[in-house]
Amino acid sequence: MKLCTIRTPEGTRAARLDGGELIDLGFSDLGALLAEPGWRARAASGTGATYDVRDADFAPLVPRPSKVICVGHNYTRHIEEMGRELPAYPTLFPKFADSLIGAHDDIVKPAETDALDWEVELAVVIGEEVRRAGETQAEAAIAGFTVMNDISARDWQFRTIEWTQGKIWDSSTPVGPYLVTPDEVGGVRPALGVRTVVDGTVMQSDDTGTLLFDPVSLIAYISTIVRLRPGDLIATGTPAGVGHARDPKVYLTGGETVVTEIDGLGACANRIVEDV
Amino acid sequence: MKLCTIRTPEGTRAARLDGGELIDLGFSDLGALLAEPGWRARAASGTGATYDVRDADFAPLVPRPSKVICVGHNYTRHIEEMGRELPAYPTLFPKFADSLIGAHDDIVKPAETDALDWEVELAVVIGEEVRRAGETQAEAAIAGFTVMNDISARDWQFRTIEWTQGKIWDSSTPVGPYLVTPDEVGGVRPALGVRTVVDGTVMQSDDTGTLLFDPVSLIAYISTIVRLRPGDLIATGTPAGVGHARDPKVYLTGGETVVTEIDGLGACANRIVEDV
Repeated sequence: MKLCTIRTPEGTRAARLDGGELIDLGFSDLGALLAEPGWRARAASGTGATYDVRDADFAPLVPRPSKVICVGHNYTRHIEEMGRELPAYPTLFPKFADSLIGAHDDIVKPAETDALDWEVELAVVIGEEVRRAGETQAEAAIAGFTVMNDISARDWQFRTIEWTQGKIWDSSTPVGPYLVTPDEVGGVRPALGVRTVVDGTVMQSDDTGTLLFDPVSLIAYISTIVRLRPGDLIATGTPAGVGHARDPKVYLTGGETVVTEIDGLGACANRIVEDV
Repeated sequence: MKLCTIRTPEGTRAARLDGGELIDLGFSDLGALLAEPGWRARAASGTGATYDVRDADFAPLVPRPSKVICVGHNYTRHIEEMGRELPAYPTLFPKFADSLIGAHDDIVKPAETDALDWEVELAVVIGEEVRRAGETQAEAAIAGFTVMNDISARDWQFRTIEWTQGKIWDSSTPVGPYLVTPDEVGGVRPALGVRTVVDGTVMQSDDTGTLLFDPVSLIAYISTIVRLRPGDLIATGTPAGVGHARDPKVYLTGGETVVTEIDGLGACANRIVEDV
């Protein structure tokens, strides 16, 4: 099952992809649907207005999650090639709902940064409230997976020892286009090709099956600290190949298009627009 | 004017303190009031049911802020006594709405930490949406001030290079009891005595007038990065005297009471309860 939030003239709507059509599920967005007990059955059987998927204007997959928690240092090959030891604990940092944009929206490069960078990430969408989840509960809490481009202003990220101010820029971070349920991608620890392509050049390429901390273990770890609610997002970290780690460094500039994609999940494709 | 959110048998309510009484303002919480255009006039003149302040059960001052942004390294004397240079930029880290509790609620010490620590902070409550605010706009965006005890699990805070996982523990962080408008505390850059008292012993004591980055400059800085919305909270950092920096280190344990207070704003007073 593939679910999304689209913009319509009447506001945003939660929808299910059915062939070439999006079926309106009767909720204002995917977050509202996921907050409903028994959402899986309602999502699978819901019928309503239909929209041609070719005209879809994707909103952020969940427009107002209560929290977005991102993970650093999580692709085994990238950690090893950097000569680092595998970490004992995941590194966590935040985004806020106001950081998110739709899967095909323009990314407006703020005039205040000259170091805007990409990070393709497998993102987990939470489907039920959990706290201190064990493995079985953590598996059941996964509504599905999506793509996030964890856009980062590197100059601001490294102004201080805390990355937060480089990570939470307003309307910077594409997430979507679809929530894809685990049954469509081989389960709750999917092994999927993941890549970033900037103007046709592959910049990152790896496999989500090589994550050091997999989606289930991340839910167990994070929910020890704080409850996770339906619609919350966990971005599971990025593989090697970000622009800031290249020699020479490469950053996003106006007119480029950055495509972040994961096999089976689809892609965010975003044009970079200079803020004037 | 002093405003708050209290719990009643019918749910939470926004109220104004009037002598010994709390006047119901017709909103479900302070966040809903602040989201209303012209909230200042409605808060000042609103009439409704009254509650005896002695029976008040304070909810988190704003129960569901869209973002809580905290600042590190901001008290000049503390930075200088540690031998650090004054930083050029504020260090930012997050909390989430689920981290917050009321001003007099128990703090449940999670079984997973043995290093629970206090941090008294002047918190700014945002009163209107701003992005890239200049000084005048930043001043006008301040609804008022309150007290936050930025409870930190130091062992988790320092597991990785990012502090987030030590800062966002569920239901850990008292905020309140009142939003106090700037006119009652000498303006938008108040110079107020600030202290933490644990079981009668003063642990932190300083003056909010010595902040390196004052409330107005923090709003200008943060709103460059991300829009601030009514009800959002900025915690402006903590003075010297946290338990983790003592020799020997001191942490909060069950049965203690931690009082974080700021002259003119009131106090959070919270009993520590061991999670069993």
